[in-house]
Amino acid sequence: MIDQTHDAAATSWVERANGHADFPVQNLPFGIFSPADGEPRIGVAIGDSILDVASAAAAGLISVVSGGILSERTLNRMLSLPTADRRALRHRLFALLTDPGNRETVTPFLHEADSCTMYLPAAIGDYTDFYVGIHHANNVGALFRPDNPLLPNYKYVPIGYHGRASSIRPSGVPLVRPKGQRKAPDVDAPIFGPCLRLDYELELGVWIGAGNALGAPIPIADAGQHIAGFCLLNDWSARDVQAWEYQPLGPFLAKNFQSTISPWIVTAEALAPFRIAQPERPVGDPAPLPYLYDAHDQATGALAITLSAYILSRKMRQDGLPAYRLSEGPASNMYWTAAQIVAHHASNGCNLNPGDLLGTGTISAPTSDGYGSLLEITRGGKESLILPTEESRTFVEDGDEILLTATAHADGFVSIGFGECRAMVLPSK
Amino acid sequence: MIDQTHDAAATSWVERANGHADFPVQNLPFGIFSPADGEPRIGVAIGDSILDVASAAAAGLISVVSGGILSERTLNRMLSLPTADRRALRHRLFALLTDPGNRETVTPFLHEADSCTMYLPAAIGDYTDFYVGIHHANNVGALFRPDNPLLPNYKYVPIGYHGRASSIRPSGVPLVRPKGQRKAPDVDAPIFGPCLRLDYELELGVWIGAGNALGAPIPIADAGQHIAGFCLLNDWSARDVQAWEYQPLGPFLAKNFQSTISPWIVTAEALAPFRIAQPERPVGDPAPLPYLYDAHDQATGALAITLSAYILSRKMRQDGLPAYRLSEGPASNMYWTAAQIVAHHASNGCNLNPGDLLGTGTISAPTSDGYGSLLEITRGGKESLILPTEESRTFVEDGDEILLTATAHADGFVSIGFGECRAMVLPSK
Repeated sequence: MIDQTHDAAATSWVERANGHADFPVQNLPFGIFSPADGEPRIGVAIGDSILDVASAAAAGLISVVSGGILSERTLNRMLSLPTADRRALRHRLFALLTDPGNRETVTPFLHEADSCTMYLPAAIGDYTDFYVGIHHANNVGALFRPDNPLLPNYKYVPIGYHGRASSIRPSGVPLVRPKGQRKAPDVDAPIFGPCLRLDYELELGVWIGAGNALGAPIPIADAGQHIAGFCLLNDWSARDVQAWEYQPLGPFLAKNFQSTISPWIVTAEALAPFRIAQPERPVGDPAPLPYLYDAHDQATGALAITLSAYILSRKMRQDGLPAYRLSEGPASNMYWTAAQIVAHHASNGCNLNPGDLLGTGTISAPTSDGYGSLLEITRGGKESLILPTEESRTFVEDGDEILLTATAHADGFVSIGFGECRAMVLPSK
Repeated sequence: MIDQTHDAAATSWVERANGHADFPVQNLPFGIFSPADGEPRIGVAIGDSILDVASAAAAGLISVVSGGILSERTLNRMLSLPTADRRALRHRLFALLTDPGNRETVTPFLHEADSCTMYLPAAIGDYTDFYVGIHHANNVGALFRPDNPLLPNYKYVPIGYHGRASSIRPSGVPLVRPKGQRKAPDVDAPIFGPCLRLDYELELGVWIGAGNALGAPIPIADAGQHIAGFCLLNDWSARDVQAWEYQPLGPFLAKNFQSTISPWIVTAEALAPFRIAQPERPVGDPAPLPYLYDAHDQATGALAITLSAYILSRKMRQDGLPAYRLSEGPASNMYWTAAQIVAHHASNGCNLNPGDLLGTGTISAPTSDGYGSLLEITRGGKESLILPTEESRTFVEDGDEILLTATAHADGFVSIGFGECRAMVLPSK
């Protein structure tokens, strides 16, 4: 629902929020932060600042939802609130931050974001990764199966698999290059050692709000109500480990050593103006089965978000160079909508819980300037990428940082961003 | 370490514990139970009774570990205790239940197990299922790939994949037959509907005790110290859904609608007398890579446990018949030890946490009387199984219960059991 919180003319008395690339007052994403001298708590990003929602609620400034929910150290219970309650909370925060009369009262609850630490926004019970980026599936499939890149189930089944919840970390936490088994094609036996083909994957994350009981599927028409928000997700992948281990049960150690997410939950409410129709399927493709088809979802289930990935090598940092863009493309290159993956996930009765995280899978554009992984950009490591420093890359090297960004835009509305999803690779220990 | 708590001559003043098939005083498994009139709490099974460990500790009868740990509603913190502390707790419980002088003091803390409710013993952060039953892998592989049943990675990589933690339920909780997509081989398109090939899988579950930090692998020599105990695990599987969905990323909705575990954690300490050498690999098989090889683990890393699966149809129940045994076989039909799957899981730095659950994968014997799934017993549904009621089965029908049991035995020691892992299938909704 588009309402006054999306008004392009609205401005905040937090002046640096106005025109902010990510966090104008029309965004109001939720996260868990700690100020320099305090404990983790619920906050909302506004420009370059963070509003301490927990303390503001404790001081009586926010009473539209139970103060207990806002004093927790995770957002799980807040995410599970009915949409109407989440919307009421958004409206109250919007009023606090737009009405100049609140400046004096609210200012003590603002912190400079740079001086704060961000945490995972929720206790993630289960993490599932999908594979809905059809161009990615085509590109990767073509590397492994040139004659048959997309398997026969792809256009019927929103392909997904369970991932590791324990190793998800917020933006900024470096990762250690994993070790693993890899086997060269020309030898009989694998060896164990540091991954030589470390890759990133550019994905959106979907935060589950209200859950469902075990044995009770979520109808597709209701699935959108179970989505509380979105984030960026880098599904770091050890391609050499993956190639050797993944049959017959799928990726395991190639994917579970660390996944990086942007720490702010951009809410479904904030994204209301950026909903667009799901792209029409190419002629000849099957229609979604009825349990995955809803006309309203088809009409509004995609998002007008531009996704980008950047690399910043150690030398680039030393030379003071900005990060180098690896790709840019629209999030609408998803063969299935977020609601479809939620409905599919629960279609067998599997219970989703508030704070569960679903990854979309890598979202690549059809052309190479929008490929969402190095595996695709370098065609399986066969072509080098040349950085502005003249360094070459086929995969991610130690000291490299990968940054993902996302911006939602629509005519007549203020663009909103997701903040950064970034992490640096440290050498194997 | 084998000590006086394993003494075959020891008896309990809880007289029905002596000679009990599962829970003599030499076992002392931990679980979470609630008495008829109370809240969930930590208990220990003794014969047909449950000792309320939480209340006994609160009354000052158990002081070897912090009372706070024993008053929690999950066993996660208890599992993470150092082995020496877990052993001290076991010794104290053993003394309380063997010394007749404690009968009067301790009896008020005993409950009839039949009048209690059992819960999941731990909050399971992540659940991983392996595939170490080599005969199962061979049998299933032969159904899909007759010429090439075991893929080239099988004897190098302890194959595993992440499963769903949220849908794990303790013994006794019925499951709803899942719906899903299935595609007949002779048609182009799948349909969505109730699973027609519902199967069980007979597995052991491994409970993680102490965890490891992200980025810090667990050396194979230390891996055993991270295993707090074992349970039975039925990894319910929708074979028709699995066949259609599993490529290229592995099983997903075919496995995550419900998994059933026995509610008692049989501790690593209790199983000390039942450790045996890992069976020698067949001539020609590769040796484990160094990160998976430890001489002590090879000498003691298998368990002398007999695993059985039973079926009880609605008609069998109505006729007052006992459950019918589907299979019986040794747990030593594992190609990798429990320590090896722990070391492998963490070898890339993936962090395990206390209360994480690892499934071994289906453990089948080489002969059909020890096959751990109906897929194997009925050769992919091609051969019917005839029950004592003359009912035939290829897969599990509505109203059927599947029961798994396990008993550890060794010369000179009292056998100990795992209790029941059972669940009934309800019709699709």
